[in-house]
Amino acid sequence: MGNLRRVPVGIVGASGYGGVQLVRLLMDHPEVEVVYLGGESSAGKPFGELYPHLAHAVNLPVEEVDPEIIGDRTEVVFLSLPNGLACEMTPKLLEKKCKVLDLSADYRFSDLTTYTTWYGKQRNDNATAATAVYGLPELYRSRIAEAQLIGCPGCYPTASLLALSPLLKQGLIVPETAIVDAKSGTSGGGRQAKINFLLAEADNSLGAYGVVRHRHTPEIEQICSDLAGHEVMIQFTPHLIPMVRGILATVYATLRDPGLVRDDLITIFRAFYRNSPWVRICETGEYPQTKWACGSNLCYIGLEVDPRTGRVIVMSAIDNLIKGQAGQAIQCMNIMMGWDETLGLPKLGFYP
Amino acid sequence: MGNLRRVPVGIVGASGYGGVQLVRLLMDHPEVEVVYLGGESSAGKPFGELYPHLAHAVNLPVEEVDPEIIGDRTEVVFLSLPNGLACEMTPKLLEKKCKVLDLSADYRFSDLTTYTTWYGKQRNDNATAATAVYGLPELYRSRIAEAQLIGCPGCYPTASLLALSPLLKQGLIVPETAIVDAKSGTSGGGRQAKINFLLAEADNSLGAYGVVRHRHTPEIEQICSDLAGHEVMIQFTPHLIPMVRGILATVYATLRDPGLVRDDLITIFRAFYRNSPWVRICETGEYPQTKWACGSNLCYIGLEVDPRTGRVIVMSAIDNLIKGQAGQAIQCMNIMMGWDETLGLPKLGFYP
Amino acid sequence: MGNLRRVPVGIVGASGYGGVQLVRLLMDHPEVEVVYLGGESSAGKPFGELYPHLAHAVNLPVEEVDPEIIGDRTEVVFLSLPNGLACEMTPKLLEKKCKVLDLSADYRFSDLTTYTTWYGKQRNDNATAATAVYGLPELYRSRIAEAQLIGCPGCYPTASLLALSPLLKQGLIVPETAIVDAKSGTSGGGRQAKINFLLAEADNSLGAYGVVRHRHTPEIEQICSDLAGHEVMIQFTPHLIPMVRGILATVYATLRDPGLVRDDLITIFRAFYRNSPWVRICETGEYPQTKWACGSNLCYIGLEVDPRTGRVIVMSAIDNLIKGQAGQAIQCMNIMMGWDETLGLPKLGFYP
Amino acid sequence: MGNLRRVPVGIVGASGYGGVQLVRLLMDHPEVEVVYLGGESSAGKPFGELYPHLAHAVNLPVEEVDPEIIGDRTEVVFLSLPNGLACEMTPKLLEKKCKVLDLSADYRFSDLTTYTTWYGKQRNDNATAATAVYGLPELYRSRIAEAQLIGCPGCYPTASLLALSPLLKQGLIVPETAIVDAKSGTSGGGRQAKINFLLAEADNSLGAYGVVRHRHTPEIEQICSDLAGHEVMIQFTPHLIPMVRGILATVYATLRDPGLVRDDLITIFRAFYRNSPWVRICETGEYPQTKWACGSNLCYIGLEVDPRTGRVIVMSAIDNLIKGQAGQAIQCMNIMMGWDETLGLPKLGFYP
Repeated sequence: MGNLRRVPVGIVGASGYGGVQLVRLLMDHPEVEVVYLGGESSAGKPFGELYPHLAHAVNLPVEEVDPEIIGDRTEVVFLSLPNGLACEMTPKLLEKKCKVLDLSADYRFSDLTTYTTWYGKQRNDNATAATAVYGLPELYRSRIAEAQLIGCPGCYPTASLLALSPLLKQGLIVPETAIVDAKSGTSGGGRQAKINFLLAEADNSLGAYGVVRHRHTPEIEQICSDLAGHEVMIQFTPHLIPMVRGILATVYATLRDPGLVRDDLITIFRAFYRNSPWVRICETGEYPQTKWACGSNLCYIGLEVDPRTGRVIVMSAIDNLIKGQAGQAIQCMNIMMGWDETLGLPKLGFYP
Repeated sequence: MGNLRRVPVGIVGASGYGGVQLVRLLMDHPEVEVVYLGGESSAGKPFGELYPHLAHAVNLPVEEVDPEIIGDRTEVVFLSLPNGLACEMTPKLLEKKCKVLDLSADYRFSDLTTYTTWYGKQRNDNATAATAVYGLPELYRSRIAEAQLIGCPGCYPTASLLALSPLLKQGLIVPETAIVDAKSGTSGGGRQAKINFLLAEADNSLGAYGVVRHRHTPEIEQICSDLAGHEVMIQFTPHLIPMVRGILATVYATLRDPGLVRDDLITIFRAFYRNSPWVRICETGEYPQTKWACGSNLCYIGLEVDPRTGRVIVMSAIDNLIKGQAGQAIQCMNIMMGWDETLGLPKLGFYP
Repeated sequence: MGNLRRVPVGIVGASGYGGVQLVRLLMDHPEVEVVYLGGESSAGKPFGELYPHLAHAVNLPVEEVDPEIIGDRTEVVFLSLPNGLACEMTPKLLEKKCKVLDLSADYRFSDLTTYTTWYGKQRNDNATAATAVYGLPELYRSRIAEAQLIGCPGCYPTASLLALSPLLKQGLIVPETAIVDAKSGTSGGGRQAKINFLLAEADNSLGAYGVVRHRHTPEIEQICSDLAGHEVMIQFTPHLIPMVRGILATVYATLRDPGLVRDDLITIFRAFYRNSPWVRICETGEYPQTKWACGSNLCYIGLEVDPRTGRVIVMSAIDNLIKGQAGQAIQCMNIMMGWDETLGLPKLGFYP
Repeated sequence: MGNLRRVPVGIVGASGYGGVQLVRLLMDHPEVEVVYLGGESSAGKPFGELYPHLAHAVNLPVEEVDPEIIGDRTEVVFLSLPNGLACEMTPKLLEKKCKVLDLSADYRFSDLTTYTTWYGKQRNDNATAATAVYGLPELYRSRIAEAQLIGCPGCYPTASLLALSPLLKQGLIVPETAIVDAKSGTSGGGRQAKINFLLAEADNSLGAYGVVRHRHTPEIEQICSDLAGHEVMIQFTPHLIPMVRGILATVYATLRDPGLVRDDLITIFRAFYRNSPWVRICETGEYPQTKWACGSNLCYIGLEVDPRTGRVIVMSAIDNLIKGQAGQAIQCMNIMMGWDETLGLPKLGFYP
């Protein structure tokens, strides 16, 4: 649309749901041009063979993954790979002066000990990891602007942290009382053929998984601890919901000051997110539906206080594949590139 | 099947989902015969007009609701009506020597003050209400056996209480830390034409409702208080899930004894429900899916302990229309009549 | 973005699904500004009360419907009303020099006798109706460009006619053998509280409706007759599918020339739609999924020939609320205004 | 229920959806006892590991498949295996005097040439195949009663043939005009991990597959030809619907006698199925919903005649896993054993 030059970007891991979201969203982004798609198992295939409905719009093949070549052809690289692969190629990409946005867990932890404990992989790239910034712009906007490497948050942590941050940052809750009961559509499981993600199994059913040991727990805790100023433990329980997209995190915590009422908290949340165009605080008595957020990069947050129990209940809804994944990575890129944070991202959810 | 005489039963409010479940289940019950169906708006229609797929099996019309006539023709009456109607006709039915199983909230509260506070209806039938027994057989089996009037539990309280009872009864948790995050299919909303229950609105979406003020809260609290031996407040949050049937209650509570491990609790739950044929405690590491329970009167319960936070997490899954409503009422009837508790109830869930 | 002046547009009937789609899509359209929203039952409410997720983006109230005022304030008006209402206000709007795009059936029929037979309403605005153009750009692009009044096609006719047109126009099939078996998501039923559209009823179920008498039949036949050059009767059967959005029309017809093979037809279809940016003909052996189209204004068409039976089978997939309704109306507006046909319309479907 | 002795039955291929349906239904059957479960990949596991919700009810392990041993321990064997395996073990089982009900395609064709053409496997057990009876009781009840080997119909053929049979048998339609547009839930694809059956892919989407070449085509044609008395070709198109269970077949055909009206056909269908307890013909103007049939062994059939086009439209709805698979096999067993055809089979569908 009249740009003299678009920034060349690449996507590694283009065949999964994160990849196809990135492709779709970046095609509409006014400042970039997707010039490279990479993949392991799908290398050699035209992208349109993986997603036929995009064949007319995306003319690129999926190529072998060679960081040297990617570095030569792109300025920004999105890595949408299984955990443990991004850290193998990122040092090379950084050396080639690429800006790197990793959607896996590899660069979410400043302390690789935690990573190794929960993800089971030994790593020795502490120096690189130490330069990574956690890509939640609502908390770390200015650091993201300076970074060359972003560890993009997980989908659950995004919803959980946007609900918890104002409370922890302002010291409004007793941190160890915080419980996150999260619910996700099945696209969060990726484009992998697993029995329990079949429609015949997952539709019209509901269950928890990864109880007390889901890997997003330490990720949430790391940021909560940073906000609280001391180490915080969070109870996190994810559930699989019979729907394609969307996450709702229902967060419970005990208020330090039992005199706080719902509208106080709504005011506090609105102030906290005043400069965050992608967060919307609901009106009094309004609770977010995941469908509101689906198709957009928005996070909707609703609040309630129970005067009987002294707890605050925060509900946050996002599209797990946009604000919870690809959209947030693009939001980070916008900030890194000095563009408007909302550039090229869908602003209005689909409904119904 | 060889019975000399079947017990004549009636269903008032046959046109709703509770009604059709009762009809369907009681048709297969070996000891009873459905001789009366009653309804307000549907009076005068053949039942098969409301549910065409049952037209070949159910030859009864829906009749006007006249307690005098119902009392003459039936020995057991199921009332499946909106809240506030059962209490109008129950005294008459009891006078006529009927056994009454009320599926509404009218007889769930021993203390009508609580009922009036949460349901907004003034009542003066304290004497009748005082004779009602709360129809959760796993807790009140022997009292149900003696009762003439049963206040059948709500769907959410059934799932919540089956998860909480062993913990409270044995004093294993700090009661005021208990949080119930419940998730229900939309059939819980009944066969009423409301915008937010349309498939186009509710499918592929998810949200909380009635936060901090859902009417099932005092019902859960009443029984929890009874079990704990003192007044208990519970945090209860229901969510609407894009599926037809099923409830999952995810219950969080802090253990009094941090030394308890998961397998201890599994042992304790199994002992608690030893004589309860409709409750199944899952194996270690197994979490219930609502689909397991759907189509049966079973409640599946899974357990986890978080040694990091000292909390127990209990997950209970039921079919909201069977164990959560019509099936449980029939289970109560079986007990009241001196029959086997499992008689005529579906034992194996549908899958997939 | 940088226009000196945007064209003021109005939407009458903003509260329904057609309305909210128009609002959402027109908010992103670079050449127009939505300046008026009208409704009957919702008049006086802020639009954000009807659709809370859009409250932050749409600041307009829903106003009373007064054609005089609408005519003064807008240049283009979209009417998204129940059948029989548009024809009451359209003459006035045309008099005020508005361009009118009616999404109801009121102006789809050049012959009001057919309208009256199938829709039951007597009308005497033959003169106005005669000036209306059927808003299917792929067939009537040049007439749309000249028109002041557009009768936008129904959702089923859009999918059906895009599948049938090349066959009829080229005389490739025996017209009276044509059968359209159509399947639609439940959003096609609108935002109305009806029992059979409840999730609890419609989910995990499937059925036909309106068999041999659905009102879209004469609409399809009128255009087919126009294409064939003689009167054509079509067998049309719609089905309700347990999903929110999307229509698939599966079309069967006997080929005149049994020697035609699948790839001949793919070539013919591609030629027919060469200048139609919103129609995509699938590759050999590829059949469209409705999800491919959802979220975009695209129609995907797949083709197969059965050499055993001599029939062609055409499958066309659209988003019923976009290409089947609001998007197509905007496409028509683009043409009427002399803008690019694709302006402001979503080009890439959502997936998954 | 007081039987002196139950008939020992075995299920080979117990781990799939056909298997689990058989297990579940046969557990409730009053005349049989499941004594053997066999499987390839799941051999050695307790059945409850495959389907944890049934662990409390089914105490059997999945065993290796050895026809010699199966023959010694059982009198009736259900084979629920991928195509091409049943024919390997059936001769041995027959030799051991077992009654065999094969749910695969292996014994559906009297002419193995057709089988080989469509299924690609060379076979030389013509003699055995010639003794097999096609297990559609509504057509071949008396032959099933005499048979030792049953080739149980596919799910689509069951729905299609129950809709077509009265028309073909009575010569009411022009056979070559018959088109079957069929729609199935995704459980028809079995418990196999395939990308296109993932909830994230299949939910909220819809598409045709196997167009003009689905293997159920020759199966339908074989029986149609038998009924018509001459070779008949049928147009058959299956579609995948975003639901778990259920098939709807919408059948179109031109009537020979244009004077026939809808109620004539309803009368004819009712007469045809007079002695078939599992087929229900809908009232005038009533069209079956798949949900009516789900959970039962019933087939609901609705009828319409289009006086404008001279076509009859027949809609038949079944539960693909019960009447379309496991239930029908049990119905056949009942007939083979001289029991009531309805024994042990669910008579009332689930709703909602």
